[in-house]
Amino acid sequence: MKLYDFPGVPNPRRLNIFLAEKGLDFPRTHVDLLKGEQLAEDFRSKSPNCDVPALELDDGTCISQTNAICRYLEALHPEPPLYGRNPREIGLVEMWNNICFTNGFQAVADLFRNGPDWFEGRALIGPHNYNKIPELVERGRLRINNFYSDADKHLNNQDYFVDGYFSVADITALVTVDFCIWAGMPAPTSCKSLLNWHSRVSERPSIRENS
Amino acid sequence: MKLYDFPGVPNPRRLNIFLAEKGLDFPRTHVDLLKGEQLAEDFRSKSPNCDVPALELDDGTCISQTNAICRYLEALHPEPPLYGRNPREIGLVEMWNNICFTNGFQAVADLFRNGPDWFEGRALIGPHNYNKIPELVERGRLRINNFYSDADKHLNNQDYFVDGYFSVADITALVTVDFCIWAGMPAPTSCKSLLNWHSRVSERPSIRENS
Repeated sequence: MKLYDFPGVPNPRRLNIFLAEKGLDFPRTHVDLLKGEQLAEDFRSKSPNCDVPALELDDGTCISQTNAICRYLEALHPEPPLYGRNPREIGLVEMWNNICFTNGFQAVADLFRNGPDWFEGRALIGPHNYNKIPELVERGRLRINNFYSDADKHLNNQDYFVDGYFSVADITALVTVDFCIWAGMPAPTSCKSLLNWHSRVSERPSIRENS
Repeated sequence: MKLYDFPGVPNPRRLNIFLAEKGLDFPRTHVDLLKGEQLAEDFRSKSPNCDVPALELDDGTCISQTNAICRYLEALHPEPPLYGRNPREIGLVEMWNNICFTNGFQAVADLFRNGPDWFEGRALIGPHNYNKIPELVERGRLRINNFYSDADKHLNNQDYFVDGYFSVADITALVTVDFCIWAGMPAPTSCKSLLNWHSRVSERPSIRENS
């Protein structure tokens, strides 16, 4: 197997934390997102949505989208389970993983990709160019603040997004919070439960190795 | 178990098709999205993101987000499998389900929710109000056209989004295409492979029962 990777940016970081939790590693090829290598024809034939990371299997099948690679690896290497240990947790992990991705990750991606720091015409990941919409920067800020207060409330009486159990929902949320910090929007000090969770989870070896 | 449902709108339809494929049914409570009942405090205590559908388990746990309910039910009732029959398919189903949702479903949701036909301040699903951004209507149109041409190309030599296997990726894509038709943007006749797939999949009993 071969992993198409670009360390240091948010989606590849999610996968690399997952791999470290599982104790897995693969030969890697870097696809330089800053040079637009994900849009080149040869990579597009492997990853139709121009997504990095992407995993190429030995039979030539390519799987892209972070959660899809993680799901494939969870099926091959179930231990430790990161998508839930029983049906109830399996449902709750998917729920919180989706909520954190939609309300947090997509919000900070909007803030970043529609602002001045990213390339013109690259407002969305994918093979097609879309112009920036400046209003999405301000909406991104509003959404991030709401994500912070909602997550803080949710974590008020529990240790992880799914109580008692570290899962991919925590990986998605951690990478989201760090993406927000990088984009200049750290969580306010009033979000004590969220900040406590963030400090605790950041001490995990999988996350320290991929900071 | 109890299902909070509002038949006829896209996300509940995805779940209802999934239930019909599995041969499952549950007692239902309607949450009227047109009256804003998903935003009421008692429902919000069950579904923190104000999502419909939501499934209440017998122990009081509530699972919302369509894929989360489906994942819970797939774990409890594995047959027929709709998220893949082996690790490779499990990865590919998640990949195509995500791509169709992000590039198709979210695009038509943007087109609809930022246009004149939906409520002011409800540009995004969730507990918080966000103003409409009119530019997202036109961007939604561009994205839907790209979703159509990309999906048509992908289906050129295969029968389902994951070849040889009907999965939740087809359910998400079918509901997306029908949502686009409802929003006034049917696929162009040039997308022959996509239209053939749509006709064929629309004949499944699960989809005819939930049209």
